[in-house]
Amino acid sequence: MSQLIYGINPVREALKGLRRKPLELLIRQGPTSPRLAELLAEARRSGVPIRELLRQELEQLAGTDQHQGVVLRVEPLPQMSFEELLARSADADQPVWLALDGITDPHNFGAILRNADAAGCQGVVVAKDRSCPLNATVAKTSAGAVDSIPVCRVTNLARALEQFKGKSYWVYGLAGDEGAVPFYGTDLSGPVVIVVGAEGKGLRPNVRSHCDQLLSIPMLGQVSSLNASVATGVALFEALRQRL
Amino acid sequence: MSQLIYGINPVREALKGLRRKPLELLIRQGPTSPRLAELLAEARRSGVPIRELLRQELEQLAGTDQHQGVVLRVEPLPQMSFEELLARSADADQPVWLALDGITDPHNFGAILRNADAAGCQGVVVAKDRSCPLNATVAKTSAGAVDSIPVCRVTNLARALEQFKGKSYWVYGLAGDEGAVPFYGTDLSGPVVIVVGAEGKGLRPNVRSHCDQLLSIPMLGQVSSLNASVATGVALFEALRQRL
Repeated sequence: MSQLIYGINPVREALKGLRRKPLELLIRQGPTSPRLAELLAEARRSGVPIRELLRQELEQLAGTDQHQGVVLRVEPLPQMSFEELLARSADADQPVWLALDGITDPHNFGAILRNADAAGCQGVVVAKDRSCPLNATVAKTSAGAVDSIPVCRVTNLARALEQFKGKSYWVYGLAGDEGAVPFYGTDLSGPVVIVVGAEGKGLRPNVRSHCDQLLSIPMLGQVSSLNASVATGVALFEALRQRL
Repeated sequence: MSQLIYGINPVREALKGLRRKPLELLIRQGPTSPRLAELLAEARRSGVPIRELLRQELEQLAGTDQHQGVVLRVEPLPQMSFEELLARSADADQPVWLALDGITDPHNFGAILRNADAAGCQGVVVAKDRSCPLNATVAKTSAGAVDSIPVCRVTNLARALEQFKGKSYWVYGLAGDEGAVPFYGTDLSGPVVIVVGAEGKGLRPNVRSHCDQLLSIPMLGQVSSLNASVATGVALFEALRQRL
């Protein structure tokens, strides 16, 4: 079983083959833009087979017209268990993990993975039955981060949070309500997990109760919350700021 | 000329009538959910006329099926000039403004307005010919912030930046490249403007040259940039953090 990546930036990232082998580059027939030519050259350098397709064929393959003339067939992502990834990050200085409790929108999921990669997260753990699959839309929106940031799906997110605690992580849940303390002023140094709930619904009670502390980002205007990917970005970059 | 707002949260915000008068509530015929009933009660309290429509009529009116059963007709936003808004924010302690140089995606634009409202911005100034209109999709994605955060369109963004400087603002451009200094560690206190460029393209050379300083958010992973709404959120909330 292979998977598909589309769009110029995601394909460029995936051609590096950091986490999975590129199998075949599918490119639109006809004149080639400089950016597509760059991808062709990179594929030739790496020995990745190239095939030309009609625009409609690419569109059908990608399931969207947002492919920008290029689709890459890749091996499926290696499925590393949460336990393996957690063990691997034991060597990191002040590791940061992200835990997602029900992000179902693929654009939000992709933007969140992009944040996690950019902010230097060790990995992302998601509740298996409450998350959208790692599909081509997620890959595109993640700007290729789907190939660099480890994502593991667990059956029981609350149990994963307890496993973090067993390794001396502090587990912080983002929540906008009364039980939460102000986000700014909180010490996020050391090993931390940031837990983010579903758009509109927030964290499930069972997941909330496994957080060491709930944190609320200040809301100074009329709106009561941020978009989930923005809230995640604000939280992860504050954790990064405290590490610089 | 009236304008339309759709979706439960945006309509709830707009019914408050903070910046423009609600003219008519259009609601789906049939059984009413508790959240819709709340909006109906609010409209009755405020004397806003109510009309029932078929689902297809609502969809046609909103131009989308994402209306959640409710559309509000409102007066157009009052067009305040940039000069008036700038004068008004002279009384603010350490005012923060946002300047957008070419955000054309309505979802990004909406999420950015939501950030600006949440982070307590004084206003948002956009380049008239390089921005998407304040349409119903922007209103929906902004979670109603379109009704609370002042937005002004200017013909010449570089000139607006110079007007800010004339009022002792510091103008910071977000940019990921070599001319930029690290974002963290920069003092964002006092009156500041954060300038954000187009997704993928960044700031135009002319706009860049009118910034006092270019700032780059650290990118620790494989991706080279953040989504525009996330980058804006990270920047605005860092400015807010320095004000708390």
